[in-house]
Amino acid sequence: MEREIFIKMTLNAWNSALSQTDKVLAELSDVQLNKEIAPGRNRGIYLLGHLAAVHDGMSALLGFGDPLFPHLRDPFIRTPDKEIVDWPSTQELREAWEKVSAHLAKHMAAVQEDEWFNKHTVVSDEDFRKEPHRNKLNVVINRTNHLNYHLGQLILLKS
Amino acid sequence: MEREIFIKMTLNAWNSALSQTDKVLAELSDVQLNKEIAPGRNRGIYLLGHLAAVHDGMSALLGFGDPLFPHLRDPFIRTPDKEIVDWPSTQELREAWEKVSAHLAKHMAAVQEDEWFNKHTVVSDEDFRKEPHRNKLNVVINRTNHLNYHLGQLILLKS
Repeated sequence: MEREIFIKMTLNAWNSALSQTDKVLAELSDVQLNKEIAPGRNRGIYLLGHLAAVHDGMSALLGFGDPLFPHLRDPFIRTPDKEIVDWPSTQELREAWEKVSAHLAKHMAAVQEDEWFNKHTVVSDEDFRKEPHRNKLNVVINRTNHLNYHLGQLILLKS
Repeated sequence: MEREIFIKMTLNAWNSALSQTDKVLAELSDVQLNKEIAPGRNRGIYLLGHLAAVHDGMSALLGFGDPLFPHLRDPFIRTPDKEIVDWPSTQELREAWEKVSAHLAKHMAAVQEDEWFNKHTVVSDEDFRKEPHRNKLNVVINRTNHLNYHLGQLILLKS
Protein backbone atom coordinates (compact mmCIF):
# COMPACT_ATOMS: atom_id res chain seq x y z
CA MET A 1 0.00 0.00 0.00
CA GLU A 2 2.74 2.45 0.96
CA ARG A 3 4.70 1.43 -2.09
CA GLU A 4 1.73 2.29 -4.25
CA ILE A 5 1.46 5.67 -2.51
CA PHE A 6 5.17 6.53 -3.05
CA ILE A 7 4.88 5.73 -6.71
CA LYS A 8 1.74 7.78 -7.06
CA MET A 9 3.34 10.77 -5.31
CA THR A 10 6.37 10.61 -7.59
CA LEU A 11 4.44 10.16 -10.82
CA ASN A 12 1.93 12.86 -9.85
CA ALA A 13 4.78 15.35 -9.42
CA TRP A 14 6.32 14.29 -12.74
CA ASN A 15 3.03 14.52 -14.63
CA SER A 16 2.18 17.85 -13.06
CA ALA A 17 5.50 19.37 -14.17
CA LEU A 18 5.05 17.91 -17.67
CA SER A 19 1.53 19.34 -17.95
CA GLN A 20 2.69 22.75 -16.85
CA THR A 21 5.53 22.64 -19.37
CA ASP A 22 3.19 21.55 -22.17
CA LYS A 23 0.87 24.43 -21.30
CA VAL A 24 3.70 26.99 -21.40
CA LEU A 25 5.02 25.58 -24.68
CA ALA A 26 1.54 25.77 -26.21
CA GLU A 27 1.22 29.39 -25.12
CA LEU A 28 4.60 30.44 -26.50
CA SER A 29 4.88 31.27 -30.19
CA ASP A 30 7.93 30.11 -32.11
CA VAL A 31 9.12 33.72 -32.09
CA GLN A 32 8.88 33.89 -28.29
CA LEU A 33 10.57 30.54 -27.93
CA ASN A 34 13.53 31.80 -29.97
CA LYS A 35 14.16 34.62 -27.49
CA GLU A 36 16.61 34.54 -24.59
CA ILE A 37 15.02 33.85 -21.21
CA ALA A 38 17.08 36.76 -19.83
CA PRO A 39 19.68 38.97 -21.52
CA GLY A 40 22.68 36.85 -22.61
CA ARG A 41 21.15 33.60 -21.31
CA ASN A 42 19.84 30.47 -23.02
CA ARG A 43 17.04 30.79 -25.52
CA GLY A 44 13.72 29.04 -24.95
CA ILE A 45 14.42 26.88 -27.96
CA TYR A 46 17.66 25.66 -26.38
CA LEU A 47 15.81 24.73 -23.19
CA LEU A 48 13.22 22.85 -25.24
CA GLY A 49 15.96 20.88 -27.02
CA HIS A 50 17.75 20.33 -23.72
CA LEU A 51 14.64 18.99 -21.98
CA ALA A 52 13.76 16.76 -24.95
CA ALA A 53 17.31 15.33 -25.00
CA VAL A 54 17.52 14.82 -21.22
CA HIS A 55 14.13 13.12 -21.09
CA ASP A 56 15.02 11.02 -24.12
CA GLY A 57 18.05 9.85 -22.14
CA MET A 58 15.72 8.55 -19.40
CA SER A 59 14.70 5.65 -21.66
CA ALA A 60 18.12 4.06 -21.34
CA LEU A 61 18.28 4.65 -17.56
CA LEU A 62 14.84 3.17 -17.02
CA GLY A 63 15.28 0.26 -19.40
CA PHE A 64 12.81 1.57 -21.98
CA GLY A 65 15.18 1.03 -24.90
CA ASP A 66 17.22 3.27 -27.15
CA PRO A 67 16.65 7.03 -27.32
CA LEU A 68 14.31 8.24 -30.05
CA PHE A 69 16.44 11.26 -30.92
CA PRO A 70 20.08 10.42 -30.23
CA HIS A 71 21.26 13.27 -32.47
CA LEU A 72 19.89 15.80 -29.96
CA ARG A 73 22.22 14.61 -27.24
CA ASP A 74 25.46 16.26 -28.33
CA PRO A 75 24.06 19.69 -29.15
CA PHE A 76 21.59 20.00 -26.28
CA ILE A 77 23.40 18.28 -23.45
CA ARG A 78 27.05 18.82 -24.25
CA THR A 79 27.07 22.11 -26.13
CA PRO A 80 26.13 25.62 -24.92
CA ASP A 81 23.29 27.41 -26.71
CA LYS A 82 25.38 29.89 -28.68
CA GLU A 83 27.85 27.27 -29.94
CA ILE A 84 25.41 24.94 -31.67
CA VAL A 85 26.01 25.05 -35.42
CA ASP A 86 23.22 23.13 -37.14
CA TRP A 87 19.98 24.00 -35.39
CA PRO A 88 16.98 21.71 -35.73
CA SER A 89 13.84 23.68 -36.60
CA THR A 90 11.59 24.83 -33.77
CA GLN A 91 8.86 22.58 -35.13
CA GLU A 92 11.19 19.59 -35.08
CA LEU A 93 12.08 20.26 -31.44
CA ARG A 94 8.44 20.68 -30.45
CA GLU A 95 7.66 17.32 -32.06
CA ALA A 96 10.64 15.63 -30.44
CA TRP A 97 9.47 16.87 -27.03
CA GLU A 98 5.99 15.49 -27.60
CA LYS A 99 7.19 12.14 -28.90
CA VAL A 100 9.62 11.68 -26.02
CA SER A 101 6.88 12.52 -23.48
CA ALA A 102 4.47 10.07 -25.10
CA HIS A 103 7.14 7.35 -25.27
CA LEU A 104 7.99 7.73 -21.58
CA ALA A 105 4.32 7.82 -20.57
CA LYS A 106 3.60 4.60 -22.45
CA HIS A 107 6.52 2.75 -20.88
CA MET A 108 6.06 4.20 -17.39
CA ALA A 109 2.47 2.99 -17.34
CA ALA A 110 3.74 -0.56 -17.89
CA VAL A 111 6.34 -0.54 -15.07
CA GLN A 112 5.31 -2.89 -12.27
CA GLU A 113 5.29 -1.51 -8.74
CA ASP A 114 8.30 -3.47 -7.54
CA GLU A 115 10.32 -2.62 -10.65
CA TRP A 116 10.36 1.05 -9.69
CA PHE A 117 12.59 0.10 -6.77
CA ASN A 118 15.04 -1.79 -8.95
CA LYS A 119 18.34 -0.13 -9.77
CA HIS A 120 18.54 2.08 -12.80
CA THR A 121 20.78 0.82 -15.57
CA VAL A 122 23.84 2.96 -14.84
CA VAL A 123 24.36 1.78 -11.24
CA SER A 124 26.45 -1.34 -10.65
CA ASP A 125 25.02 -4.18 -8.56
CA GLU A 126 27.62 -3.50 -5.91
CA ASP A 127 26.88 0.22 -5.65
CA PHE A 128 23.18 -0.48 -5.57
CA ARG A 129 23.55 -2.76 -2.57
CA LYS A 130 25.16 0.13 -0.71
CA GLU A 131 22.89 2.83 -2.15
CA PRO A 132 19.45 1.33 -2.73
CA HIS A 133 17.90 4.75 -3.33
CA ARG A 134 19.58 4.82 -6.75
CA ASN A 135 16.54 3.16 -8.23
CA LYS A 136 14.29 3.92 -11.19
CA LEU A 137 11.88 6.00 -9.15
CA ASN A 138 14.77 8.23 -8.12
CA VAL A 139 15.51 8.94 -11.77
CA VAL A 140 11.97 10.29 -12.10
CA ILE A 141 12.32 12.38 -8.92
CA ASN A 142 15.56 13.93 -10.15
CA ARG A 143 14.26 14.65 -13.62
CA THR A 144 11.09 16.21 -12.19
CA ASN A 145 13.22 18.64 -10.21
CA HIS A 146 15.35 19.35 -13.28
CA LEU A 147 12.21 20.01 -15.32
CA ASN A 148 10.83 22.41 -12.72
CA TYR A 149 14.15 24.28 -12.68
CA HIS A 150 13.90 24.96 -16.40
CA LEU A 151 10.13 25.49 -16.31
CA GLY A 152 10.78 28.46 -14.00
CA GLN A 153 12.96 29.84 -16.81
CA LEU A 154 10.68 29.05 -19.77
CA ILE A 155 7.81 30.87 -18.07
CA LEU A 156 9.80 34.11 -18.32
CA LEU A 157 9.24 34.09 -22.08
CA LYS A 158 5.50 34.57 -21.65
CA SER A 159 4.37 38.08 -22.44
CA MET B 1 13.05 -0.90 4.01
CA GLU B 2 11.30 0.58 0.98
CA ARG B 3 9.74 3.16 3.23
CA GLU B 4 13.16 4.16 4.49
CA ILE B 5 14.50 4.35 0.94
CA PHE B 6 11.65 6.48 -0.26
CA ILE B 7 12.03 8.93 2.64
CA LYS B 8 15.75 9.14 1.91
CA MET B 9 15.09 9.84 -1.79
CA THR B 10 12.65 12.61 -0.92
CA LEU B 11 14.83 14.25 1.72
CA ASN B 12 17.94 13.95 -0.49
CA ALA B 13 16.16 15.87 -3.24
CA TRP B 14 14.98 18.51 -0.76
CA ASN B 15 18.42 18.94 0.79
CA SER B 16 20.09 19.06 -2.59
CA ALA B 17 17.82 21.89 -3.76
CA LEU B 18 18.37 23.75 -0.47
CA SER B 19 22.15 23.42 -0.77
CA GLN B 20 22.12 24.67 -4.33
CA THR B 21 19.96 27.62 -3.30
CA ASP B 22 22.23 28.45 -0.37
CA LYS B 23 25.21 28.36 -2.71
CA VAL B 24 23.59 30.74 -5.20
CA LEU B 25 22.50 33.09 -2.42
CA ALA B 26 26.03 33.15 -1.01
CA GLU B 27 27.43 33.97 -4.44
CA LEU B 28 24.98 36.80 -5.12
CA SER B 29 25.73 40.22 -3.66
CA ASP B 30 22.88 42.26 -2.21
CA VAL B 31 23.10 44.47 -5.30
CA GLN B 32 22.66 41.48 -7.62
CA LEU B 33 19.83 40.14 -5.49
CA ASN B 34 17.98 43.42 -5.87
CA LYS B 35 17.96 43.10 -9.67
CA GLU B 36 15.14 41.66 -11.75
CA ILE B 37 15.69 38.06 -12.88
CA ALA B 38 14.60 39.17 -16.37
CA PRO B 39 13.34 42.53 -17.62
CA GLY B 40 10.06 43.42 -15.89
CA ARG B 41 10.04 40.23 -13.79
CA ASN B 42 10.42 39.55 -10.07
CA ARG B 43 13.58 40.67 -8.33
CA GLY B 44 15.85 38.16 -6.66
CA ILE B 45 15.01 39.72 -3.32
CA TYR B 46 11.33 39.03 -3.91
CA LEU B 47 12.05 35.38 -4.68
CA LEU B 48 14.13 35.14 -1.52
CA GLY B 49 11.25 36.54 0.57
CA HIS B 50 8.80 34.30 -1.27
CA LEU B 51 10.83 31.15 -0.64
CA ALA B 52 11.39 32.06 3.02
CA ALA B 53 7.64 32.67 3.49
CA VAL B 54 6.55 29.52 1.66
CA HIS B 55 9.01 27.34 3.57
CA ASP B 56 8.01 29.01 6.84
CA GLY B 57 4.46 27.95 6.01
CA MET B 58 5.58 24.32 5.87
CA SER B 59 5.90 24.27 9.67
CA ALA B 60 2.14 24.47 10.09
CA LEU B 61 1.50 21.84 7.38
CA LEU B 62 4.00 19.44 8.89
CA GLY B 63 2.98 20.01 12.50
CA PHE B 64 6.21 21.81 13.44
CA GLY B 65 4.40 24.70 15.12
CA ASP B 66 3.79 28.34 14.28
CA PRO B 67 5.69 30.12 11.52
CA LEU B 68 8.77 32.04 12.63
CA PHE B 69 8.09 35.01 10.34
CA PRO B 70 4.32 35.35 9.91
CA HIS B 71 4.71 38.98 8.74
CA LEU B 72 6.40 37.75 5.53
CA ARG B 73 3.33 35.86 4.44
CA ASP B 74 1.17 38.70 3.16
CA PRO B 75 3.85 40.55 1.20
CA PHE B 76 5.67 37.56 -0.25
CA ILE B 77 2.86 35.11 -0.90
CA ARG B 78 -0.15 37.33 -1.56
CA THR B 79 1.40 40.46 -3.06
CA PRO B 80 3.30 40.89 -6.33
CA ASP B 81 6.87 42.20 -6.16
CA LYS B 82 6.24 45.72 -7.37
CA GLU B 83 3.28 46.31 -5.03
CA ILE B 84 4.99 45.63 -1.72
CA VAL B 85 5.19 48.85 0.27
CA ASP B 86 7.38 48.26 3.33
CA TRP B 87 10.31 46.14 2.24
CA PRO B 88 12.29 44.20 4.80
CA SER B 89 16.03 44.72 4.36
CA THR B 90 17.96 42.26 2.23
CA GLN B 91 19.90 41.22 5.32
CA GLU B 92 16.67 40.53 7.21
CA LEU B 93 15.42 38.31 4.38
CA ARG B 94 18.70 36.42 4.15
CA GLU B 95 18.52 35.76 7.90
CA ALA B 96 14.86 34.71 7.71
CA TRP B 97 15.73 32.22 4.96
CA GLU B 98 18.54 30.72 7.04
CA LYS B 99 16.47 30.51 10.21
CA VAL B 100 13.54 28.89 8.44
CA SER B 101 15.86 26.32 6.81
CA ALA B 102 17.48 25.51 10.16
CA HIS B 103 14.10 25.25 11.89
CA LEU B 104 12.76 22.84 9.27
CA ALA B 105 15.95 20.76 9.30
CA LYS B 106 15.81 20.37 13.07
CA HIS B 107 12.17 19.26 13.05
CA MET B 108 12.46 17.07 9.95
CA ALA B 109 15.29 15.13 11.57
CA ALA B 110 12.94 14.24 14.43
CA VAL B 111 10.05 12.95 12.27
CA GLN B 112 9.61 9.21 12.66
CA GLU B 113 9.43 7.11 9.49
CA ASP B 114 5.74 6.28 9.81
CA GLU B 115 4.82 9.90 10.61
CA TRP B 116 5.92 11.00 7.15
CA PHE B 117 2.98 9.03 5.80
CA ASN B 118 0.47 10.72 8.09
CA LYS B 119 -1.77 13.33 6.59
CA HIS B 120 -0.57 16.91 6.55
CA THR B 121 -2.57 19.27 8.73
CA VAL B 122 -4.73 20.84 6.03
CA VAL B 123 -6.30 17.60 4.75
CA SER B 124 -9.46 16.34 6.44
CA ASP B 125 -9.58 12.76 7.75
CA GLU B 126 -12.18 11.95 5.16
CA ASP B 127 -10.20 13.31 2.22
CA PHE B 128 -7.09 11.57 3.46
CA ARG B 129 -8.82 8.20 3.44
CA LYS B 130 -9.57 8.73 -0.24
CA GLU B 131 -6.25 10.39 -1.09
CA PRO B 132 -3.56 8.85 1.11
CA HIS B 133 -0.79 10.46 -0.93
CA ARG B 134 -1.67 13.82 0.66
CA ASN B 135 0.79 13.09 3.45
CA LYS B 136 3.64 15.03 5.02
CA LEU B 137 6.22 13.61 2.65
CA ASN B 138 4.19 14.89 -0.28
CA VAL B 139 4.47 18.42 1.13
CA VAL B 140 8.24 18.07 0.95
CA ILE B 141 8.07 16.73 -2.63
CA ASN B 142 5.91 19.63 -3.75
CA ARG B 143 8.02 22.27 -2.03
CA THR B 144 11.20 20.76 -3.50
CA ASN B 145 9.75 21.18 -6.97
CA HIS B 146 8.65 24.72 -6.14
CA LEU B 147 12.14 25.54 -4.87
CA ASN B 148 13.77 24.17 -8.03
CA TYR B 149 11.41 26.26 -10.14
CA HIS B 150 12.59 29.46 -8.46
CA LEU B 151 16.21 28.29 -8.22
CA GLY B 152 16.24 28.18 -12.03
CA GLN B 153 15.30 31.86 -11.89
CA LEU B 154 17.66 32.98 -9.12
CA ILE B 155 20.60 31.52 -10.99
CA LEU B 156 20.00 34.05 -13.78
CA LEU B 157 21.23 36.80 -11.46
CA LYS B 158 24.73 35.35 -11.39
CA SER B 159 27.18 37.33 -13.46
